Amino acid sequence: MVTMNNYLAVDAGGTSTRAVLVSSSGACLGYGFSGGGNPVSRGFEASAAAVLEAAEKALAAAGGPVHSATIAQAGASLQPPPRMLLEGFRRLGVVNGTVTQPDLLAVFYSGTYQNDGHALIAGTGAVAARVQAGRLAAVADGAGWLLGDSGAGFWLGREVVRAVAAALDGRGPHTALTEPLLAELDIHMDTAVGSYGRTGVLQQLINKAYELAPIELSRFAPLVFGAPGDPVAVDIANRAAAALARTLLAVMEGHPGGPLVFGGSVLVKGGTVAAAVLEKVGLRVPVARPAPVLVHDGVVGAAVLALKRHGVEVDAGVFGRIATSLAALRD
Amino acid sequence: MVTMNNYLAVDAGGTSTRAVLVSSSGACLGYGFSGGGNPVSRGFEASAAAVLEAAEKALAAAGGPVHSATIAQAGASLQPPPRMLLEGFRRLGVVNGTVTQPDLLAVFYSGTYQNDGHALIAGTGAVAARVQAGRLAAVADGAGWLLGDSGAGFWLGREVVRAVAAALDGRGPHTALTEPLLAELDIHMDTAVGSYGRTGVLQQLINKAYELAPIELSRFAPLVFGAPGDPVAVDIANRAAAALARTLLAVMEGHPGGPLVFGGSVLVKGGTVAAAVLEKVGLRVPVARPAPVLVHDGVVGAAVLALKRHGVEVDAGVFGRIATSLAALRD
Repeated sequence: MVTMNNYLAVDAGGTSTRAVLVSSSGACLGYGFSGGGNPVSRGFEASAAAVLEAAEKALAAAGGPVHSATIAQAGASLQPPPRMLLEGFRRLGVVNGTVTQPDLLAVFYSGTYQNDGHALIAGTGAVAARVQAGRLAAVADGAGWLLGDSGAGFWLGREVVRAVAAALDGRGPHTALTEPLLAELDIHMDTAVGSYGRTGVLQQLINKAYELAPIELSRFAPLVFGAPGDPVAVDIANRAAAALARTLLAVMEGHPGGPLVFGGSVLVKGGTVAAAVLEKVGLRVPVARPAPVLVHDGVVGAAVLALKRHGVEVDAGVFGRIATSLAALRD
Repeated sequence: MVTMNNYLAVDAGGTSTRAVLVSSSGACLGYGFSGGGNPVSRGFEASAAAVLEAAEKALAAAGGPVHSATIAQAGASLQPPPRMLLEGFRRLGVVNGTVTQPDLLAVFYSGTYQNDGHALIAGTGAVAARVQAGRLAAVADGAGWLLGDSGAGFWLGREVVRAVAAALDGRGPHTALTEPLLAELDIHMDTAVGSYGRTGVLQQLINKAYELAPIELSRFAPLVFGAPGDPVAVDIANRAAAALARTLLAVMEGHPGGPLVFGGSVLVKGGTVAAAVLEKVGLRVPVARPAPVLVHDGVVGAAVLALKRHGVEVDAGVFGRIATSLAALRD
């Protein structure tokens, strides 16, 4: 017998944060949205402020005490929640403290209520997880833009810029990516060779690209999917899918069963990459499995985690109630 | 008829700077060495100080006025020499001002006195040049660590770290690169899986790699050549050679003749890469050509440029005199 409580669940991502107030029965009672809430990329203070802003919006409509808060975020459980956040939650009526959970688990549980399966996320970064008994049993990649994140947004954007630079100085083939990239960066096609033996257009591309923070190259990732017939773009997309398939296989081999959840814009919006990943994975894991569940964020999963961690059995009925009532609040 | 003069020639590189005092006949009269003198990576003040330190050492042994100074450096002719440098040169007895020249030309002329040919440099970065009538007619790559420099030191070091990260979480094959990389970074082989589903060793690798500036990954490049039987290392070296061959071919196709100069540690110390580049280039440019000239820096070429730019005809005799007399000074 579970006491009826209300729980605050927060999905704190790199570019946005979502909070929901959910009851023990899975009814979502309030929803809030704010900016980036990832302490790794935003810093502790800004991320805590974003989490509190979303939480306050989620709690605005509902009265009464909140049992506890669950925050899903990258690098969770490496650091305790900062004091500013805990004090803010107490002020908002959260009675029994705060637990953090890995963002990966929240994405997984946004697609399923089962406790065993796999998730592959390819947003700006790329990471795959095997979930066993509700815990992260294995994680592959997620190593960041310099060491890994192979096939995800930054990787794609960097490949676009490198391919265009190579096309402009003759190291690589002509590509339809050149024109939209130059337009994005407001660069004109100046082909006169300067005193350093380099065309004006390439010198401008170099100058403008290094004015960006490296990770900002991810904004050019969508160009890959806007040039469908271009062999260079097709090659980049194929290599991205191959890298993402290797990442998923690394956590799947030997444990192929259970639901598969796909998250992140490269998989959710770039349908061709998702299909190519499945094809490549299917070649090596010959198990009939249902289609992957596509999820846009981890807020449903944060609610699932909040309930599960407090003894609520989340079955198909509760899971469906969370998803449906949350969708109504978000409309 | 050329008046006999003495010229100051400086090769200002990213990690070290070399200066030589050379006579119209090609006799080197003084030599000096100092730290990094590249204004792009070091800043104007530090680079000017390094150039002046090397120049002062080169001029210490010789008396009398110096006709003029020639500085070979990356990004030359994009910026006029800073006032601090010009004033320092005047103080050292340089009478007729200072000209800057592209470092690429200095590397080329360190290997030949001819005015038409090609150079390929692969140090931390990678760049190829076609020289025509003593000018840079075309340059390929040199686009920096984020956009290019394919196959050079940073690229190699990054591939090492990425391959080891992939081996550690099962995305890539086991590699003999793992042990020496972990030893370099003082990381112990902790294979216990933490709460984020990641082994301790991989988490340590990620933490330590991101403490470095990205470009510092180039220090791991030599590991590729220390694991000769390892398929992963062989694959990295092959891809580096293929990228460097594409870079050289981009400036060579249609103009295959003339001497070929190789510079930078990846080509000069990593003999297997240089051989592989030649093999790949040979497949597409079927011209019998002499072996490439390997050069360790651009100081001979800076002296050649100083003489050529002031009307001295640099023939085989003058070139040989520069190289021989400079080698004696550097011993």
